[in-house]
Amino acid sequence: MKLATYKDGSRDGQLIVVSRDLRFAHYATGIASRMQQVLDDWSFMAPQLQDLYHQLNTGRAPHAFAFDATQCMAALPRAHQWAEAAAYPCHLALTQPQWPLSTTEPLMRQGAGDSLMGPCDEAVVGSAAMGIDFGAGLAAITGDVPMGSSPEQALHAIRLLMLSNTLSLRHLMPSAPAQPWSHLQSWPATGFSPVAVTVDELGDAWRGGRIHLPLHSSCNGRKVGMCEAGEDMTFHFGQLVAHIAKTRALYAGAIVGAGVVSNQGVVSGKGQNQRMDWPRGYHCIAEKRAMELQQSGAASTAYLQFGDTVRIEMKGKDGLSIFGAIDQTIVSPQGDGSSA
Amino acid sequence: MKLATYKDGSRDGQLIVVSRDLRFAHYATGIASRMQQVLDDWSFMAPQLQDLYHQLNTGRAPHAFAFDATQCMAALPRAHQWAEAAAYPCHLALTQPQWPLSTTEPLMRQGAGDSLMGPCDEAVVGSAAMGIDFGAGLAAITGDVPMGSSPEQALHAIRLLMLSNTLSLRHLMPSAPAQPWSHLQSWPATGFSPVAVTVDELGDAWRGGRIHLPLHSSCNGRKVGMCEAGEDMTFHFGQLVAHIAKTRALYAGAIVGAGVVSNQGVVSGKGQNQRMDWPRGYHCIAEKRAMELQQSGAASTAYLQFGDTVRIEMKGKDGLSIFGAIDQTIVSPQGDGSSA
Repeated sequence: MKLATYKDGSRDGQLIVVSRDLRFAHYATGIASRMQQVLDDWSFMAPQLQDLYHQLNTGRAPHAFAFDATQCMAALPRAHQWAEAAAYPCHLALTQPQWPLSTTEPLMRQGAGDSLMGPCDEAVVGSAAMGIDFGAGLAAITGDVPMGSSPEQALHAIRLLMLSNTLSLRHLMPSAPAQPWSHLQSWPATGFSPVAVTVDELGDAWRGGRIHLPLHSSCNGRKVGMCEAGEDMTFHFGQLVAHIAKTRALYAGAIVGAGVVSNQGVVSGKGQNQRMDWPRGYHCIAEKRAMELQQSGAASTAYLQFGDTVRIEMKGKDGLSIFGAIDQTIVSPQGDGSSA
Repeated sequence: MKLATYKDGSRDGQLIVVSRDLRFAHYATGIASRMQQVLDDWSFMAPQLQDLYHQLNTGRAPHAFAFDATQCMAALPRAHQWAEAAAYPCHLALTQPQWPLSTTEPLMRQGAGDSLMGPCDEAVVGSAAMGIDFGAGLAAITGDVPMGSSPEQALHAIRLLMLSNTLSLRHLMPSAPAQPWSHLQSWPATGFSPVAVTVDELGDAWRGGRIHLPLHSSCNGRKVGMCEAGEDMTFHFGQLVAHIAKTRALYAGAIVGAGVVSNQGVVSGKGQNQRMDWPRGYHCIAEKRAMELQQSGAASTAYLQFGDTVRIEMKGKDGLSIFGAIDQTIVSPQGDGSSA
């Protein structure tokens, strides 16, 4: 099923059920009013929401209305745990070549669970001089995960999947990992897709804890990335959740992200014209700049400016949008889109 | 006023008001049932709770009952933002001498807001071989803090203060800051004092964004630390909150900790007998081991074992406990206190 949270002026919003084709929605009021409530009591509430979802898809829901993604908050508007990994080592190899890469343990960091953005919310950044970057990825919302869970057990605790847009402030990020605690300011906020979906919505594209579909990213209306999200995800979602659960339990409503989706570069051309190429593009500007550096010795693509837009979407094999699109504009604290 | 959350089998518990002397309590049911509700709507609810607090202190509350700290969850049982600083540089200088120290910006990291422990909850750790350490400190719960707030503005957004016990797994912590994202597993959970108090409860001990009172820590019933909490806190609470707010807003219910309380060492003895000494003791075992290393060339104090207890408390000038005591036992996942 597909769930979302509509803005209603409150901090937690109103839970809605959204039809598979994202055309219609229905308030879940009779079942639960907030997403966290559902996660807290999933086994009791999910079947009731599933019934409503079925009614909605078959045109039998009594008070259905047209779904509008711009009215959405993050599906879980505030989370008690938000951790993001770098599950695609080729992303790290490109953007942080000086960092040590582990093949057995994912790199992960914890973020601000009170700083989650709706899919069409303006992304407010203090200054364009901070080196504003987007980061397109996938994230899972878990149920309770006991300490010491295996990757397989952790996989079964995944309740919902979403798309994510992690803002980075690249110029506030240390180039060397000399300050182990210094990443707090440079990862200020994260946007999420309009709807969060249960894994069954992905059909056979959900295999081995990964989503085997291309992710599409655009900047200012131009397609810049279409990497395959399952292919180079070295650590699957069960492994990411189990990594956190090694020393603690996770509780219902924890969001665990896989980081920027990225694919390996390929060698193109022959002889003297041989060079590395990334035909599927990029899902953050830092990657594009690293590619340019390798290909021509200079990074020419600028980081985001006020007024720039980022769109992130994933479509199923039927061509329909699965999660709806993240579609955010970067704005100044004064709310305007003109570059300062 | 003093607020706490009683266990009731739910994830958020029941909000109670506690008398100044910590002897009596009263359910806040008619006003709010959960702490997060109060933080979300502070200006409306705090005055009502303050009235109940006054009734309780003057023996006029209708359904008062004896307060029992063992029934408490963390005052805010789960938080959407939990960030901890190292606001006492002498703690870092002792325990992480290889890390660069900034005199202008506090080091901070974000933790797991879904992994907060009640004051008397058992602290479950996977293995004693992980190098289990406690960490006694102070923490603030904030209201909404707009992006770009000054330290003075941030100070005014502090709603409540608490004691904290941050568990560390020292052997999972990299000795060199080579892995910038690797601290997630080594900081699994945090315990908090029975009650959270508004700043006016501290009288003139609350000055310049700091609490000028000694903190008392004991291990297995033996007093090990009594450092003065205001003295060497280089960055005050307003500065810590403003550091986070530089690139984002904070929202009601963010918990910001100041890290392990620590005081500068003093030179004792004369001539050849001269050596560094720390007469006020320590608030984490890593500090004690660093002191031993400096004084005798070998760290002899062991990290915590299953069954070991940690008690943390702060008393006012009247000798009364302000926050109640954190009193936790380290146990294995099987819940027993015997060393594995």
